[in-house]
Amino acid sequence: MDLTAATRSLSSAVSAAARLLTARSGLLLRAGRDGLTIGGNDSERAVRLTCDAVSHADGEVVVPAGPLAETLRMLDDDMVRLVVEGSRLAVRVEGGRFALPLLSRELRLPDMPPRVSEVDGSALATALRTVAGTAAKDDALPMFTGVRVQSFSRELRLTASDRYRMAVATLPLRAEGEPVDALVPAGLLAETAKQARGVVGLHGDGTRFGLSWAGVAVTTAVLDAGFLSEKLIESSTVDTTVEVAADALAAAVRRVGVYADERRVLTLEVGDSQLRLASSKQDTGEAEETLKAEVSGGRTSPSFQARYLLDALQGFAGDRVRLDIQPGMRACVIRAVEPGDVELTYYVMPMLPR
Amino acid sequence: MDLTAATRSLSSAVSAAARLLTARSGLLLRAGRDGLTIGGNDSERAVRLTCDAVSHADGEVVVPAGPLAETLRMLDDDMVRLVVEGSRLAVRVEGGRFALPLLSRELRLPDMPPRVSEVDGSALATALRTVAGTAAKDDALPMFTGVRVQSFSRELRLTASDRYRMAVATLPLRAEGEPVDALVPAGLLAETAKQARGVVGLHGDGTRFGLSWAGVAVTTAVLDAGFLSEKLIESSTVDTTVEVAADALAAAVRRVGVYADERRVLTLEVGDSQLRLASSKQDTGEAEETLKAEVSGGRTSPSFQARYLLDALQGFAGDRVRLDIQPGMRACVIRAVEPGDVELTYYVMPMLPR
Repeated sequence: MDLTAATRSLSSAVSAAARLLTARSGLLLRAGRDGLTIGGNDSERAVRLTCDAVSHADGEVVVPAGPLAETLRMLDDDMVRLVVEGSRLAVRVEGGRFALPLLSRELRLPDMPPRVSEVDGSALATALRTVAGTAAKDDALPMFTGVRVQSFSRELRLTASDRYRMAVATLPLRAEGEPVDALVPAGLLAETAKQARGVVGLHGDGTRFGLSWAGVAVTTAVLDAGFLSEKLIESSTVDTTVEVAADALAAAVRRVGVYADERRVLTLEVGDSQLRLASSKQDTGEAEETLKAEVSGGRTSPSFQARYLLDALQGFAGDRVRLDIQPGMRACVIRAVEPGDVELTYYVMPMLPR
Repeated sequence: MDLTAATRSLSSAVSAAARLLTARSGLLLRAGRDGLTIGGNDSERAVRLTCDAVSHADGEVVVPAGPLAETLRMLDDDMVRLVVEGSRLAVRVEGGRFALPLLSRELRLPDMPPRVSEVDGSALATALRTVAGTAAKDDALPMFTGVRVQSFSRELRLTASDRYRMAVATLPLRAEGEPVDALVPAGLLAETAKQARGVVGLHGDGTRFGLSWAGVAVTTAVLDAGFLSEKLIESSTVDTTVEVAADALAAAVRRVGVYADERRVLTLEVGDSQLRLASSKQDTGEAEETLKAEVSGGRTSPSFQARYLLDALQGFAGDRVRLDIQPGMRACVIRAVEPGDVELTYYVMPMLPR
């Protein structure tokens, strides 16, 4: 194998591939008439990216992903040559040679399941930033580490929960196709939210799920772990509704949260035309802040973990939100008053007040 | 106590005071005719800052530093009121009240030792960024955690070492005065490098050392732990001299360092008109990079820890440096070819080659 490529685009492609796989994997590089294909797999995922390159001698190698990505990121030269020299892949620039060992590992490129539909990449990224962030990073029950991806005739629905909150986002599908219903590892979708652009294809066949966009294709085994559903959450007993600007509420939660107790809990006291946030902690003192709000219904005043409220409100940045509050230990439901293409519903479980 | 102040300048002053003291201390606030004085002390240091404020009722309180600094930093309002209400200091803005407990702790403001001289704040900051960073963060011998501050008739000299390298900086004094020779905790000087501006006064009386600038005064007990000196380092056997651009060398060290062994050691191979960096590591492969350099004398080719070289070169960013290399396990001496007001000499101990 022997090729020349633009350093920046090669560096981006290698870093993107390494991030879509889990850490410490090798990467497969394949030079051919179509340029360079970069890819590989770990236990659950497989990924493939293409990158413009001029191949002087076609071929295929597997090298350690980390040092290759790090070296390319730090190069100042515009162009870089990758060339096999004996048992090494040499990364060559003027005055520099960085030689990676060739690994004997067998890696595979993704074998994509059928494309069932497609969505707008930026809408998908917006939805995933909130939804994938709501799944648990680590949980004995795999259900809480995944995002349920459901496609209907005109709509994609994404659902995740870590037991304490649940996020549900819907966005329009760009094409009708076979329905999909898969529980997909949240970590992969969080990385997808950072990389996806343009039109994103959805692929699925029951046991595998895939995504594809601008030169990138990735598949993963789906989690076989039951399905999250909004129906698990009681929301028929709403008795108090508050409308307020999401950013102003988040800023107040941050400030009042400094004075929250060890559990980081603060109370939303619902008043006439206002929402009063209050917290107190033995050593630190107490804080209260009052925001103008449109209030209707009762005056149910729940308490929440500050960071759960902040996570929820981040998904509504720039929007006015409606909080539908239920009495007792039932979830508060947060929605944008005027939702855009991505419709987000966020459920936050209250905490016992102090 | 009852006063009104501009939120931003009050926030800066409170944060600056908290950072100059070690963590978790209370802060003394004193409102009077001259505005607000903020200060306090920990076991070794005392600090005082002044801040413009309109006092409606003079008085003095001690409150927890952390939550006060955090609250002020997050406020959006231009003006803020601090007012004692019972056993609380209330931080008040429209719609918000943040109430900190009054602490019964006795705090003292610095009693400055005599001012012996003064230096330019930005030159001092430049010198301290490198020198204070060279001291050990933590060491059984306090000598290695301090910066030796020596004033001569026209020059201030700053020296620090962590055993593996030593930095010595000299800068001009703006006024002649009593000589100072003190070992000062490096942590305080590192923070000073971030904050000091304008003209900085030097204060000392043998057991205490102090600094003052634009509304800020800080004193510390000096370390009683022997004195660092360049004379401890052999530098009479230089046989190889290399001149090279500091930034180009640092960039190459970063790239080649990716392939360094577990000890992070790389070799500088001195050749004719060039410097060749080389490293290798079993699993990662090997790297080499060649830089143009002016070489004179022999061809002694030492090995160094990559991060020590990077720390050293950071102090010469933008400059061309001369490396004076000695054979055997003797220090390499790094200096700017054309030093400015701040003259820096950096000694790095070599490592055994792989």
